[in-house]
Amino acid sequence: MSQPLVGIVLGSDSDLPEIKDMLETFKEFGITYELNIISAHRTPHLAHAYAENAEKKGLQVIIACAGGAAHLAGVIASLTTLPVIGVPMQTASLGGLDSLLATVQMPAGVPVATVAIGKAGSVNAAVLAAQIIGVKSPEIREKVRQFKANLAKKVEEKNKNLKI
Amino acid sequence: MSQPLVGIVLGSDSDLPEIKDMLETFKEFGITYELNIISAHRTPHLAHAYAENAEKKGLQVIIACAGGAAHLAGVIASLTTLPVIGVPMQTASLGGLDSLLATVQMPAGVPVATVAIGKAGSVNAAVLAAQIIGVKSPEIREKVRQFKANLAKKVEEKNKNLKI
Amino acid sequence: MSQPLVGIVLGSDSDLPEIKDMLETFKEFGITYELNIISAHRTPHLAHAYAENAEKKGLQVIIACAGGAAHLAGVIASLTTLPVIGVPMQTASLGGLDSLLATVQMPAGVPVATVAIGKAGSVNAAVLAAQIIGVKSPEIREKVRQFKANLAKKVEEKNKNLKI
Amino acid sequence: MSQPLVGIVLGSDSDLPEIKDMLETFKEFGITYELNIISAHRTPHLAHAYAENAEKKGLQVIIACAGGAAHLAGVIASLTTLPVIGVPMQTASLGGLDSLLATVQMPAGVPVATVAIGKAGSVNAAVLAAQIIGVKSPEIREKVRQFKANLAKKVEEKNKNLKI
Amino acid sequence: MSQPLVGIVLGSDSDLPEIKDMLETFKEFGITYELNIISAHRTPHLAHAYAENAEKKGLQVIIACAGGAAHLAGVIASLTTLPVIGVPMQTASLGGLDSLLATVQMPAGVPVATVAIGKAGSVNAAVLAAQIIGVKSPEIREKVRQFKANLAKKVEEKNKNLKI
Amino acid sequence: MSQPLVGIVLGSDSDLPEIKDMLETFKEFGITYELNIISAHRTPHLAHAYAENAEKKGLQVIIACAGGAAHLAGVIASLTTLPVIGVPMQTASLGGLDSLLATVQMPAGVPVATVAIGKAGSVNAAVLAAQIIGVKSPEIREKVRQFKANLAKKVEEKNKNLKI
Amino acid sequence: MSQPLVGIVLGSDSDLPEIKDMLETFKEFGITYELNIISAHRTPHLAHAYAENAEKKGLQVIIACAGGAAHLAGVIASLTTLPVIGVPMQTASLGGLDSLLATVQMPAGVPVATVAIGKAGSVNAAVLAAQIIGVKSPEIREKVRQFKANLAKKVEEKNKNLKI
Amino acid sequence: MSQPLVGIVLGSDSDLPEIKDMLETFKEFGITYELNIISAHRTPHLAHAYAENAEKKGLQVIIACAGGAAHLAGVIASLTTLPVIGVPMQTASLGGLDSLLATVQMPAGVPVATVAIGKAGSVNAAVLAAQIIGVKSPEIREKVRQFKANLAKKVEEKNKNLKI
Repeated sequence: MSQPLVGIVLGSDSDLPEIKDMLETFKEFGITYELNIISAHRTPHLAHAYAENAEKKGLQVIIACAGGAAHLAGVIASLTTLPVIGVPMQTASLGGLDSLLATVQMPAGVPVATVAIGKAGSVNAAVLAAQIIGVKSPEIREKVRQFKANLAKKVEEKNKNLKI
Repeated sequence: MSQPLVGIVLGSDSDLPEIKDMLETFKEFGITYELNIISAHRTPHLAHAYAENAEKKGLQVIIACAGGAAHLAGVIASLTTLPVIGVPMQTASLGGLDSLLATVQMPAGVPVATVAIGKAGSVNAAVLAAQIIGVKSPEIREKVRQFKANLAKKVEEKNKNLKI
Repeated sequence: MSQPLVGIVLGSDSDLPEIKDMLETFKEFGITYELNIISAHRTPHLAHAYAENAEKKGLQVIIACAGGAAHLAGVIASLTTLPVIGVPMQTASLGGLDSLLATVQMPAGVPVATVAIGKAGSVNAAVLAAQIIGVKSPEIREKVRQFKANLAKKVEEKNKNLKI
Repeated sequence: MSQPLVGIVLGSDSDLPEIKDMLETFKEFGITYELNIISAHRTPHLAHAYAENAEKKGLQVIIACAGGAAHLAGVIASLTTLPVIGVPMQTASLGGLDSLLATVQMPAGVPVATVAIGKAGSVNAAVLAAQIIGVKSPEIREKVRQFKANLAKKVEEKNKNLKI
Repeated sequence: MSQPLVGIVLGSDSDLPEIKDMLETFKEFGITYELNIISAHRTPHLAHAYAENAEKKGLQVIIACAGGAAHLAGVIASLTTLPVIGVPMQTASLGGLDSLLATVQMPAGVPVATVAIGKAGSVNAAVLAAQIIGVKSPEIREKVRQFKANLAKKVEEKNKNLKI
Repeated sequence: MSQPLVGIVLGSDSDLPEIKDMLETFKEFGITYELNIISAHRTPHLAHAYAENAEKKGLQVIIACAGGAAHLAGVIASLTTLPVIGVPMQTASLGGLDSLLATVQMPAGVPVATVAIGKAGSVNAAVLAAQIIGVKSPEIREKVRQFKANLAKKVEEKNKNLKI
Repeated sequence: MSQPLVGIVLGSDSDLPEIKDMLETFKEFGITYELNIISAHRTPHLAHAYAENAEKKGLQVIIACAGGAAHLAGVIASLTTLPVIGVPMQTASLGGLDSLLATVQMPAGVPVATVAIGKAGSVNAAVLAAQIIGVKSPEIREKVRQFKANLAKKVEEKNKNLKI
Repeated sequence: MSQPLVGIVLGSDSDLPEIKDMLETFKEFGITYELNIISAHRTPHLAHAYAENAEKKGLQVIIACAGGAAHLAGVIASLTTLPVIGVPMQTASLGGLDSLLATVQMPAGVPVATVAIGKAGSVNAAVLAAQIIGVKSPEIREKVRQFKANLAKKVEEKNKNLKI
């Protein structure tokens, strides 16, 4: 894969099955990415280094996926000027409400672009990243347009088959 | 003001005081914006037209601020390929938990980049918009860097004054 | 089936098993309905067209079933004068609290008649639709009366069998 | 006032200020109503009698407003075939989450058409009642159409004044 | 069984497995009970009649078990001077938070003695009923004392076995 | 005051204004009570001694009012065979949801009869205590009947005055 | 095992599988512990005696694990000067939100050092106990340092294997 | 002040009034502290440096106070072997539930000793710090004992004055 445009960071490898559709979506968009398991709390130095080098490496968007006291997106956002997307992972005890609040309720000045809890959110992180890159790249924006048209088509087909 | 880069949409004019700092932040970044009051539920045709024309008009990011069953960001996101940022406004009854869940829990394929509830979120929408535009514009990215440096400096000064 | 009186709209075909009892209940009432899968976010144009044509087509009530940031009922309610019933679907992460708040917390002027989360709510949407149509049709009102009498009878029978 | 079409029931007179806009909205629609303070828990016999006589008296819709363990709408719904709208009132301790859940989570077979918590919900109860009566009365439906057009106009005017 | 002292009312027969331990506990106390399935919403007349006759029949305590918009305990409490214990049943969507708030948040003047959600609560309803009857009956109070001593003994034994 | 029948325990003197109506209600019932400020966490020995002596002193019911991690009712319930009523006090941060859950979610075998959060709950604790004592005392039961009749009368009068 | 440094107390033996990793973690640190099943509500005298003797026995930290109205940690904290760590156990109905609030929301003056809900929290109780003992023992602090280094190493290895 | 034993870190100077009683409590214990305003998100380098130098400087406990997506305690805990106490600050929108979950739900291996939301929690952080230092210092442990005795005495006095 050529130079990745998107850096995906998982707080734990147990989240890998949850983000499979995110990776598929990136492939559909033809957007290159790199995937790392980096814990804000267990490997803080890696998290800091990753955030501080992201821009230099040519990444344009970072996606951080974490659950519970989900600090990963916020920690990275504190150390980069790149847009950071946070995916709050579902949790066994509180369903992901903890992950959501810990990701989204950032203080004024340091945003995390938060998407839905769990699998739907992981797909949306990919689409949002494509929309962000699309601000620069007409080609990617066109692909977002096609993606949305396909989404609509699939629903329409399900609707037709339902009626028959 | 020249051609705006960011379209800000408020669901209700009662939210105007809550977003004052968002407008200040855009001025600090030198990012042009337009501001409209459009209700997803009371003026749906306006909302649709706004979303569908946004890209053609040259907008690069849309920010939608709404409370309660906050559909504004989602309605706009369904009709544009631009990145859409949602600011969940605080509510009297549930504090904004309703606004937050109605904004962030979007289905796979149609993301809303959600920021914190209320005033902090409104500032963060501006910073996130700047980070997104910064993917294209090195000048804006540089301003984000300065903004973050200023944030740090202000905290450091408060800390110093505290010690004296 | 003759001209339907009720338009049922599902945000996703994955909700079909959840609304089986709603369809049964309509059959019990002898109320004609049409069923469509239309996503507020993935097929916004369909959702708009559906809402705008509903009255002309002779529908008297619309039922919208959606989960998460459940905007479907609100989007339709914004574009029709018909009463719109919203069924918040259960969600894996937050149990349907998100769907409920996104459906019920509508701004002043644009109501969604919200019923319980999930299966119980889907039955209740049918009963509520019958009660609404009953305002016009003494025949349907009579059927609601019988339905309620049957409900009571079933509980009484269970109670009797319990004692033996 | 001639024979009322809508029966409004308040669980407590402390809720009177919260429903002022509901009464205004009914006047705007020219829909006659009667207003009673009846507590499901303190005056259960009144509540039962009210529900059982409502249809005979010619009421077409009942609106019940209550807070906390808000049973009023459910108690009435259990004893009438008329559509019952529930307005969950805001509470000091839990903001109205208790009222909302106690109103909306009705068992299969006995719906309460629930609207938003508090003031917005009280207006919406009036609009929903008008939409329900509109199923029978083209005149009222036309007034709902005008009401919605006015809502839109007010937002548009606020938007215009904002720009100047 | 001789004249029952406690009236147990279930909102739905689906709750029967949840209250098995309640019945066992009553047998352990030697307290007679009667068990009925009566729905506040589906069989309101039965619920009213039950509540109004309870005292005359010689019942000393009523236990009402219901889920969701759990009105059963409140409806009964509104129509009797007997102490009413409410058991909020666990729900699929919200875990029983809805049942709990709908049972406990009663208005001033009409209490429901609420116990824990689900199975633990159903046992506790039996113990609380025994404690209430114990106010009158030294024999039952003595049995409560033994019950508590047994509870302690069981924990102590588990602790001892753990250490070996 | 003669030998008190009810022991009221407050976790903090800051809760005194919240329970004023409880004391009034006991006076209305002519039920003697004693009032103590005892903290489960700050004066555990007092709490234990109070619970262990309550029965011997002739108390028939204990009411414990506490907020936050509200253990007072549970601590007392663990050390007496008397029925224990818990009043969860409203809290600044979480509105009393914390107090409610900490009071009501007791393990199987050790019930706390929980009433509503805050002021309404404090009145209800008095009414529930009267209902419990009424199991033994026909005189108190008769007073509960009158209290309920008065409650109804007050609502009816408010309703009449409303109509004029 | 020599004189234990840490006293672990479980409210119920059903929590044993949840704390297996806590015990493993203590073995990894070489920190001696004792484990008891003591219920705050079922065996209050044991709980009191345990708390009052803990310091004399040479314990340096106490860990209390309980669910629901989780008073165990608070009860012990009220009777000892030792630091008390509370582990809120996951619950079937509310996921552990009840346990968390009942453990953490202690009144001013009587802290419980609360960790995460369930299994993660039980490991963290062990690490926190080690950190506390590390204030006194350089050897244990060194082991905490190694533990943290190992945590980091494991994440790094997972990350490496991911890339290959 | 001599070499501080406790490092207090505030995420924002707006929290200063909330922690006044914490500082008073430390003075009462005679425990030296240093106070800094350091934001995990606005001054991440300061936060990292602070955490990494804390042990070398002779600090024995760190207290981090933050609100919203409260990462400060977690960020510091990831970079030190010292015990870290987290105080979740009250928030305008969600009351501090966000702060609490973002502080307490830490992943296995990196604990934050979380205390109550807001002012009560800030006092408790001081008491917990004293208890932790008391593991090493008999003198401080003795002061904790006196502090607890004073707490009890104050409640007892309030109780006495209440009776007169």
